[in-house]
Amino acid sequence: MTMSKNKKAVLLLSGGLDSTTCVAIARSQGFDIYGLSFDYGQRHMIELQAAARVVAQMGLNGHVTAKIDLRLFGGSALTADIAVPKGRGGDGMASKAQGKVQGKDQGKVQGEIPVTYVPARNTIFLSFALAYAEVTGASDIFIGVNALDFSGYPDCRPDYIAAYQAMANLATRSGIEGGGQIKIHTPLIDMTKADIITLGLALGVDYSITTSCYDPAENGDACGQCDACYLRLKGFREAGHSDPVAYIARGNNDL
Amino acid sequence: MTMSKNKKAVLLLSGGLDSTTCVAIARSQGFDIYGLSFDYGQRHMIELQAAARVVAQMGLNGHVTAKIDLRLFGGSALTADIAVPKGRGGDGMASKAQGKVQGKDQGKVQGEIPVTYVPARNTIFLSFALAYAEVTGASDIFIGVNALDFSGYPDCRPDYIAAYQAMANLATRSGIEGGGQIKIHTPLIDMTKADIITLGLALGVDYSITTSCYDPAENGDACGQCDACYLRLKGFREAGHSDPVAYIARGNNDL
Repeated sequence: MTMSKNKKAVLLLSGGLDSTTCVAIARSQGFDIYGLSFDYGQRHMIELQAAARVVAQMGLNGHVTAKIDLRLFGGSALTADIAVPKGRGGDGMASKAQGKVQGKDQGKVQGEIPVTYVPARNTIFLSFALAYAEVTGASDIFIGVNALDFSGYPDCRPDYIAAYQAMANLATRSGIEGGGQIKIHTPLIDMTKADIITLGLALGVDYSITTSCYDPAENGDACGQCDACYLRLKGFREAGHSDPVAYIARGNNDL
Repeated sequence: MTMSKNKKAVLLLSGGLDSTTCVAIARSQGFDIYGLSFDYGQRHMIELQAAARVVAQMGLNGHVTAKIDLRLFGGSALTADIAVPKGRGGDGMASKAQGKVQGKDQGKVQGEIPVTYVPARNTIFLSFALAYAEVTGASDIFIGVNALDFSGYPDCRPDYIAAYQAMANLATRSGIEGGGQIKIHTPLIDMTKADIITLGLALGVDYSITTSCYDPAENGDACGQCDACYLRLKGFREAGHSDPVAYIARGNNDL
């Protein structure tokens, strides 16, 4: 076995459209890619199945799945007993009425952040990526956050990413031992979903193996009504392509 | 049940001497305390048993244990198949010879950071604390890091903590919604172990319920020879007290 001379990158891989596009981008930049996925008590395992398809089809150099239980803290429709909001106002934000929370979180002011927000999720994910980077000897971390379609998540903003990178460079061995500086790559941060899809298709991404839906059927079919489906279908429509994944119903969002 | 008017703080609770002293300090400052412990694939459950004793005896307002598997990444004597170094050069650093790694990590340059360092551990722990703080409505996080006895861990330094706090204030709802600013308290950061013990005893801490050893016997007795035992026994000696916990052997470090 010959050792690759490529630089190594850890890439947060959900198996969604964005992170899968990141794989193609990182590869086009010459990185060996070490995927990191999370089994974080989400309602479904569809994401992890999609991540496994991406690892196999795109031939990643390494892949680990970290099991962490974010349900411990509750507080999100993606991990706790809160209904995933259906429908969307079209203003880039799940409406407050649709995002009304149920159960123990009822009455908590959700402000302009949707109930699908998981507390500190990207902070936790990046922290594991930092550990994986340190162990594999990678100095580069890719995360497919997006500031345009970010749905109001605070931890998808450029200034958050910059602050994380500054912290990361003080957190690790390299900070003391003078190794390579950690760089957090967010290649999608200023792109529309349509831009991402157009670039991904140009790089040969097979979007049929990805999943984005917050509330898929047991067979993996996307609901077509949640915030993630709305953004994905809108992106494909604007990019002039039809989404190759199966939907229960595409509403008025498809081509 | 009346609601407490106290401010809430999340406190990283290992059941060790430092974090238990932090409980007493946070309480003396009027905080309601929500303890956060980790089941992180460490070799022993002795720490979690000590944390449970602290929660019960000191009456914390909440406590959760997050299960995360840092063994996934390897790279540390505390989580992977690497021998815990015994003995200590007395220079604040486990010697490289004693810290020689075994197995798959053999040959990796460990530099001036001991093999007991867990990659990105405090970064991961603080990220979970941030999630717990957001869910409980706490703006304050206590972590018992120490820059004097820090044994070369990069993520125990004041500039790291400051950078983490800056990042945390961009990561959460409060960053968008104008809630309370996150403050990370490190009351022990400039204290010697003897200072910590002296303060803790003044605040009524019962150190017999705590544990510090990296490599305890099955019955919980401390080894008396690892880096953590060395620092703890030295601290008690300098504070003029005898450590109330049981040791297999205290070597020359006890009173």
